Amino acid sequence: MAETPAPFDPGEFHRRRAVLQAGMAGDGLDALLLSAPADIAWITGLATRFWQSPCRAWFVVVPAKGDPVAVIPEIGCAPMARTWLDDIRSYPSPGEDGIDGLLAALAACVSKTGRIGLPMGAGTAPAMPLASWLRLETALRPRCFVDAGSLVAGARAIKSEAEIARIRAAARAGRAAFAGLPALAGPGRRIADVARAFQAAVLEAGADHVGYLAAVAGPGGYGDVIDPGDSRILVPGDVLLVDLGAVVGGYYCDFGRNVAIGPPSAAVRDAHRALHDAVAAGIAAARPGITAADLHGVMAGVLQAAGQRPGGGRFGHGIGLSLTEPPSLMPGDRTVLEAGMVLALEPGVTLGPGRLLVAEENIVLRGDGAALLTDPAGPTMAVAE
Amino acid sequence: MAETPAPFDPGEFHRRRAVLQAGMAGDGLDALLLSAPADIAWITGLATRFWQSPCRAWFVVVPAKGDPVAVIPEIGCAPMARTWLDDIRSYPSPGEDGIDGLLAALAACVSKTGRIGLPMGAGTAPAMPLASWLRLETALRPRCFVDAGSLVAGARAIKSEAEIARIRAAARAGRAAFAGLPALAGPGRRIADVARAFQAAVLEAGADHVGYLAAVAGPGGYGDVIDPGDSRILVPGDVLLVDLGAVVGGYYCDFGRNVAIGPPSAAVRDAHRALHDAVAAGIAAARPGITAADLHGVMAGVLQAAGQRPGGGRFGHGIGLSLTEPPSLMPGDRTVLEAGMVLALEPGVTLGPGRLLVAEENIVLRGDGAALLTDPAGPTMAVAE
Repeated sequence: MAETPAPFDPGEFHRRRAVLQAGMAGDGLDALLLSAPADIAWITGLATRFWQSPCRAWFVVVPAKGDPVAVIPEIGCAPMARTWLDDIRSYPSPGEDGIDGLLAALAACVSKTGRIGLPMGAGTAPAMPLASWLRLETALRPRCFVDAGSLVAGARAIKSEAEIARIRAAARAGRAAFAGLPALAGPGRRIADVARAFQAAVLEAGADHVGYLAAVAGPGGYGDVIDPGDSRILVPGDVLLVDLGAVVGGYYCDFGRNVAIGPPSAAVRDAHRALHDAVAAGIAAARPGITAADLHGVMAGVLQAAGQRPGGGRFGHGIGLSLTEPPSLMPGDRTVLEAGMVLALEPGVTLGPGRLLVAEENIVLRGDGAALLTDPAGPTMAVAE
Repeated sequence: MAETPAPFDPGEFHRRRAVLQAGMAGDGLDALLLSAPADIAWITGLATRFWQSPCRAWFVVVPAKGDPVAVIPEIGCAPMARTWLDDIRSYPSPGEDGIDGLLAALAACVSKTGRIGLPMGAGTAPAMPLASWLRLETALRPRCFVDAGSLVAGARAIKSEAEIARIRAAARAGRAAFAGLPALAGPGRRIADVARAFQAAVLEAGADHVGYLAAVAGPGGYGDVIDPGDSRILVPGDVLLVDLGAVVGGYYCDFGRNVAIGPPSAAVRDAHRALHDAVAAGIAAARPGITAADLHGVMAGVLQAAGQRPGGGRFGHGIGLSLTEPPSLMPGDRTVLEAGMVLALEPGVTLGPGRLLVAEENIVLRGDGAALLTDPAGPTMAVAE
């Protein structure tokens, strides 16, 4: 039976608020407006999967001093009342859009010449109708909105021990399920059926839910890494990738495993070993002070030295309340890694047109280096006969 | 073994495009811009759960005549190439935001005084950074954006037989799993563990994945309907609600079941029977020509005649590629129901503070009335001993 992670202690959210407000002071912000589901879950602790219903907007206003104010649809009031927030204002939805209540909450803490932070840049999206945004922005003038995406992402990137425990629990469920994957994935099985049975195994191993899954296979490598699992039948020579986002207490792990259907070719074996070595080098190099780009470079260097052609996009990213979070392990991302960051290391190679292979493991950065949250795949690819 | 639904025939997407383009002609639109995951899945047929990664924007431009153009992150190219779209343009992401490619695609089909439709109103949200939106809107002037939310929602609301088959398959998996719910939910069980075991059963019964789940219980009724399942232990006198969004071929069912933990009180029994009767009346009344508001009124009337106090929000909604879609069964929604709409009927009552009960079934509207997609819960609440 799965162990439910302990609730966050009240100090957890006071610390999160303090991190935001320190950043807001540095940026000269009078308030911060959050609307994205993961941002709202992070600052409030609200647990729900109701974000899959796209018809209602949720808002949290963080003032420069004092406690956050929630402006949410009525259906959310009871669950939000169980969080640490005291000031919860609701609006009828569907029917209204919440902007009247949000205007009141913002006008109360932002002077007419004040600045309101809002995630607006890369990797963010406003979880409200554009018509609501336009009304909000117009009504609040001459107050102005400024991008606070980096502030929020930076605060969320450094995980507490309680957050790390949840990601570790999610990874543990994944690990147990992946141990049984070769037995599910023999020749003649349909990929969709493997995906279905694997997800059941993840739940039985203790995940609260399976928030993300990709299952894709092809001869000697796969053509993409995001297909959810189709009706194709596995045949000898295929390599199957199952990529899992299991969730415990709201937090994702994100790692995958390759399974050869029948004995893999020499090219596949070599690529798998090179990916293993690249991940190992990444784990060894990951520590506070190195940049995301440099960590990419370490892994890319190992692949190139092994005669492999890097492929499959960036070589990793943050994980947490979202399946993928900043930073990106890729050239150009100069984010300096810090203790408390939880990362997916995800190098990939291309063996030819439509023939990718990727490896993925999860780590947490400590003061002296990286600690694994997953049991790394070995240098030899698992085989399903 | 689950039956995978047959692929959509090519005509499916030509018909969808034709419906959009007819609406665009009526509204004087030169192009339609789609960014929301479900809108993109609907017009392209793309299958993926990668929307859980919030770091990349996907766009589809539907011109007034001719085929759609996709402007998407590179990671999506191979899966999008398996859809019916021919014109697929990609951009490196993370790193860029896709707006340059989108500007080119829009400028090619919209004259300088033209109008671009974009879902902007209630129930929509732009799946791109606000900074990207501002750059796009500014660069395209004097072209203007107008709200096309109703056009898109109206097109999506009328399901084809192939879409209905997927929702029916999702509901079938839910039905099989719900049959076993009382055996999972006895006194002494933790709600989170019931939720986990139930989701595994949904997968074993043939769902591709469990896109939404709520599991909440309380003495003589529950305080909310969106909690994902916490560590509370079920005790006699509780009523447990499990509300399921199972997914097959991208399409959701959305229905729930109540289970009494030990014999229910007379008040709970009466409320359950009244909800059953309200749903039955709703099924009998649902037919093309009635409005969403009137269908709400039919169900509310049954509850009031039974001496129950309506509660729990709207009394139902559309379902499809999203867990909830327009219309809303509530006063004020004057949408006229049409054949091909798939609806969740979801009346609720409140028995006192923090004591809700809701019932939910799924139907499809035919020319002569409603056909059930679920086996309705009976008038007597299931009991777990």
